[in-house]
Formats: sequence, structure tokens, C-alpha cells
Amino acid sequence: MFSFRLLATDGGARLGELHTAHGVVQTPAFMPVGTQGSVKAMRQRDLEESGAQIILGNTYHLYLRPGDQLIARRGGLHRFIGWPHPILTDSGGYQVFSLAGRRRIDEQGAEFRSHLDGSVHRLSPESTVDIQARLGSDIAMVLDECLAYPATRDETAQSMERSARWAARCRARFAAIRDGAGNEVGATNAGQVQFGIVQGGVFQDLRDQSAGAVTEIGFEGYAIGGLSVGEPIDLMYAVASDTARVLPPDGPRYLMGAGTPEDLVECVACGIDMFDCVLPTRNARNGQLFTSEGRINIKNARYAEDDGAIDPACGCYTCRTHSRAYLRHLYLAGEMTAGTLNTLHNLTFYLDTMRRIREAITLRTFDKFRQEFLRSASRLSLDS
Amino acid sequence: MFSFRLLATDGGARLGELHTAHGVVQTPAFMPVGTQGSVKAMRQRDLEESGAQIILGNTYHLYLRPGDQLIARRGGLHRFIGWPHPILTDSGGYQVFSLAGRRRIDEQGAEFRSHLDGSVHRLSPESTVDIQARLGSDIAMVLDECLAYPATRDETAQSMERSARWAARCRARFAAIRDGAGNEVGATNAGQVQFGIVQGGVFQDLRDQSAGAVTEIGFEGYAIGGLSVGEPIDLMYAVASDTARVLPPDGPRYLMGAGTPEDLVECVACGIDMFDCVLPTRNARNGQLFTSEGRINIKNARYAEDDGAIDPACGCYTCRTHSRAYLRHLYLAGEMTAGTLNTLHNLTFYLDTMRRIREAITLRTFDKFRQEFLRSASRLSLDS
Repeated sequence: MFSFRLLATDGGARLGELHTAHGVVQTPAFMPVGTQGSVKAMRQRDLEESGAQIILGNTYHLYLRPGDQLIARRGGLHRFIGWPHPILTDSGGYQVFSLAGRRRIDEQGAEFRSHLDGSVHRLSPESTVDIQARLGSDIAMVLDECLAYPATRDETAQSMERSARWAARCRARFAAIRDGAGNEVGATNAGQVQFGIVQGGVFQDLRDQSAGAVTEIGFEGYAIGGLSVGEPIDLMYAVASDTARVLPPDGPRYLMGAGTPEDLVECVACGIDMFDCVLPTRNARNGQLFTSEGRINIKNARYAEDDGAIDPACGCYTCRTHSRAYLRHLYLAGEMTAGTLNTLHNLTFYLDTMRRIREAITLRTFDKFRQEFLRSASRLSLDS
Repeated sequence: MFSFRLLATDGGARLGELHTAHGVVQTPAFMPVGTQGSVKAMRQRDLEESGAQIILGNTYHLYLRPGDQLIARRGGLHRFIGWPHPILTDSGGYQVFSLAGRRRIDEQGAEFRSHLDGSVHRLSPESTVDIQARLGSDIAMVLDECLAYPATRDETAQSMERSARWAARCRARFAAIRDGAGNEVGATNAGQVQFGIVQGGVFQDLRDQSAGAVTEIGFEGYAIGGLSVGEPIDLMYAVASDTARVLPPDGPRYLMGAGTPEDLVECVACGIDMFDCVLPTRNARNGQLFTSEGRINIKNARYAEDDGAIDPACGCYTCRTHSRAYLRHLYLAGEMTAGTLNTLHNLTFYLDTMRRIREAITLRTFDKFRQEFLRSASRLSLDS
């Protein structure tokens, strides 16, 4: 059912298609983050309108509430949330490391306290595979250990090696489900595939080792984890680029947790095919809006009587209908609609950027697009 | 420009059309409340989709933030908020009496402190007319004094008489603006009309006196104020009915601040043409949903695994797309989208009820509709 088709390249940039059990995703792709089964402030039809072809769900959150078993009884995550298009789920590891209380990690997995009610839970490589099988996402991720930045070479090496052992266990469990244990587990998507994750921090030899181990196990796609965690931006680009280079050219490459619009363009140039990030949605709720001429902060007094659209070059409902003056008023008045209108714009900007990237690769003009995009996007506003 | 056309009657119920400077409103009509220039959790296109033909704006809130002068410089409220359809504005009086701090009322008007920042403001009958002229609503309301319930007959009589004197001053100021002072004031809607308000509490002789005084002044329409403030429901129906009876049959009648779906049906039977209430929007954000079989509270554990729509008889986006189980999850997870989906449903239910009422009057089956509606709506749910 699943396949990745590479349609064209332009320099390092790749144009492709992910064929999944719930439809096709054009790559390079950006995945809006739907943590709790909802991309914050967006209805599903708003997502479709903004151009989203795939969204991300967070295993940690959905496992805790409403529970993966409940979702499986509803027929899986797609049916539960009313989103018939592709979904990728993370493994929950990142949230255990960043959000949960009093966690204890050992070779078996992680024990932690829920951030909701303090209750104690255990996740293992195998159980995160089972949970994602019940959620029935189209792409499931392996459990990996997430290190804080900076970490020493030794810490990073040990952690990367543990992640590789976990990846092997995740793949074994995934294979068992595919080969017959699915009913017993309550799997809801027979077409689900699994991506491995390359770790190794900012040490390229460790990245190479990790990539070797993970591709040796073999997955339908490969993610680069442990970036966008505070390292300098040039280092992130360098690691993403060098790591992408050692990944199989015929599989999709997913850079987890990135990034700004400039990051997307730069990392497409490095050969990345998939991205996810909370930036467009979270910033929208805080009044920071992305435009073709840089970022603006709608709270700023200079917009009080500005009758123009957020971005005159944008065709989203918000830009077609409302002025900066009105959006500033809604934000300052604490109206929920500020969040919904701003999010629709920011996601449209991100997904429109991806469309322009794909078009530029098709036309073999990606490098020119990139230079022009970075010039205008880096007019980083008088507001910030 | 403005006219009210009575098209049919069925018992006390009236079918009509309000022709305003921004289009036609079919009556009986329900007006969603857009306090701060936004019906909470709704985009303007959601309002159109739900069947709203006119919305209400709150003068008190808009005067304080972003300011009526700023809105006038943007071309008026319609343009500022991107709503090209009819708007009614209240006078701000009710909010001064219920929301503002440390108020002092005398014959001249009200002095009060802003609930936002404690700053001191004054509103007079004349200034509320000027503010609404700048907002440019299609229907402006006179300033009236709003008494708490219960009040003695003496208090009610004195207050009603002051409201009548204020109504005369409001009308004089309105006429001055219409006859030439508009430019100086910064009026933004030459087609604006003004409604008077009948007070008198629950004392029918005072209501009759008030109606006499207000119709003597003469307005394009008449509102019944000072109800839905805590009096017994049967008393409200009786006062609304007896007051409607003494109002001019050729003008629209607006019952301010009501009510539940049953209130709408009952008061249409009394000859009321227009309603506004925060109930559908506020309750939606609190998880209380109106359905054709009574109210449900989506928080209730019984909906945790309920795959049905909120109301199988409803055709709104929420009911077409999502289950009670998902909506309960969104609510408990604190997702903003719970508010937007629930509000879209509740407003659709209200506006659909108004459409069914109008249809029943057209078919001369209103009394039958009313009996059936009250029987199903009063199945007041195991949830409440």
C-alpha cells in the first residue's frame, strides 16, 4: 500500500509523493501538529482549505487522554477525529522527556508521571508500537531517547546506541503486528508503516553510525531526530544535510520538529522531504504572523489603524476578509476568533510555501526561489 | 431606506421583513451577540453559514475598546469587522448597569469606571446616540435605565419615567444627526434607524404608560427591555405578551435579552419579532448543547464512547463531521476547537428554529409547531 515516489530533483531538493493508506502526500511536505487529535484552533475543513495533506498526532497525549483503547474502539484516530487524510504519529518519547513528571529511563523503557494527573505510566519500545497500531496512523515512529542539548559525546553515543536497540525492538514488534498480532493488539490500520529515527546529536560520526544501524534494521522511511533543540542554526543545517546524505535515496526523509519558514527552505535544499513544527500554530495564538515580507506581531500599536491585510500576497480567508486593525482588536480583546483567524493564516503561509517549493523544484528554479525567499523572509520585521 | 413589512400572521405570531441599509432580515429573527465586534468563537462566514441575517454589537464594549472614533475612521462597524449584513447596536446602558464599576446615575446620564482599566467615563442619552452613529449600525437603541429585579413599584415608576425622558433626548439627538449634524459627529451609516425601549418592570400599568410615552415620541421600532432579568418565566411571558399588544402593529417588536429556545417560540406566539441572547454562544463554550430532543452537556461521561452526532436532526458542519465522543474529548482537553464547533452547532440550532417558526407561520401551522417543539425541547435531558 505504502510507497515513496521520487519525481524530480533540483540540486539537493527532492520532489516526491508519499502514497499512504489514506491518500497521497506531495513532498516536500509540512505536517501541522494536532497534539490532542486537533490542530489547535483549526477545524478539519480549515486544515483542508489551508492545503494540509497530512497532520501529526501526539501519541503521549492521546494515550493519556482519551486513551488509545477508546480511540481504537471508535475505529482509529482518522475516524475519531473526522480527518480522512494521512496522519503521522510520533512515538511519545519526546513528550516523556520534555513534558512528563519524575521520569525514570532504563533499557526497558520509560516510567513517568502524567502531566495531567500525576498518575504513573510505563512506555516501552513495544508498547509505543502497540499504541500507535491502535491509533492507526499511516506512519508510526519508533521510540527513541531524546537528549537535552548540549550533551557530551559520551552521553550522546550511549543514548544513540540505546535508541538503535529500541529501534530494533520497535521494528520487531511492528513486524509481529503486521504478521498476525494485529487483531490481538487492536490495530486499526492494516496499511500502517513505520519510520526509524537517526540520533547522534551534533556529532557527525555518531549520526553516521546511527544512520547505519537504523537503515540496517530497515524502515519505510527515516527521520532525523534530536535537532531543533537549541543548537546553533548553522550546525542544525550542517547535521541535517550531512545526515540526509547518508540516508537511502529511495526513502522519505523527515526532519523532526523544524522549523521556521527559512528552515524549511534551507532543509529542503539539504534533501529533506517532511517537516513538522508547532511554530505556525503556536505563534498564531500569540499574535506572531508570518508574511511574505517577514514576521509581524499583530499586538503592535502600529497596526491599530492599519486597514491592510496581514499579507497582501496571501489568499487565505483571513487575508481576504479582515484588516490588521481588526485582527489586532480581536487579539487585544482576548477573542478566541483571533486564534482561529491567525492560525488559518499562518498555516496557509507555511503550506503555501511548501507548494511554492514543490513548484520551484518542478521548474528547476529552486535555488533562485530559495535565494529570493530568504531575502524577503529575513526582513525580520520591526516588530519582534 | 428602512421599512418593516408584515407579511402574514398566525394567531399572535407575525411573519415579516426588516429592510435595512445592509439588507433584509426575515422575522421572527434571532440576533447572535457580537459583543466586541465578534460573535464569540465564530468567524463571519460561520455566522452566514449558520443562517444569521443580523448580529448585535455592544456599544459599551466597542466604545471602550477599540473606540467608536477608531471604528468610524475605519468606515464604521460593518467594514471594521468584515460583516456586510445588518447590525443592531444596544445603547450600552445595560452594561453600564451590570458590568462597569462604581457607577453614578443621575438625570444627565451615567458616570462609571471601565471594567477594563478603571478609567472614568460618562455616557449621556445624547452621547450614546453619537457613539452609535459613529459605529454606523443599522438599528441603534436609545439609552434606558436598567433596574435590578425585583424592584418596588415606586422605584420602577421613577426609573421608567427617567427612561422615557432619556428616550425623548435620544430621539432629538438622532433627528439632529439625521438632519445635518451627522458629518460633525462622524456618522457612518446614513440609513441608520432608532428603536425606543419600553420599561416598567413587571407592572403592567407602568408598561402601558411607558409604551404610550415611547410610541408618542415615535421610533422605527420598539423594544421591550427589563425582562429576562430573573423574574419567573410565566411573568415574563405575560408582560411580553401584554406589552406587545399595546405596541404599534406596523412596527417591529424586539424582546431584549431573551432567551431559551422555548422562550423564543412562546414569545413569537405573543407577537415578538426580534430576539437576542448570549445563551447559545455562552452555553456552547461551557459544553451545553441544544438539540431537537432537549439539552445535553457534552462533558457527561455517558458521551465518552458515543459515536452519534450532537443532534441527528441537525445539518451543521459539527453534526455532519463529528461525534459526541470527539466533541467531549475536545472539551475535556481544553481545545479551542470545542468552542468553535459547539458554538456553530448551537447557533445553527437557534437560527434553524427561527426558520422553522417562520415556515410554520407561513403555513398557518404555528400553534401545532409550538406544541410539538415545547414537548421535545422540554425533554430536559438527564444531563442538566
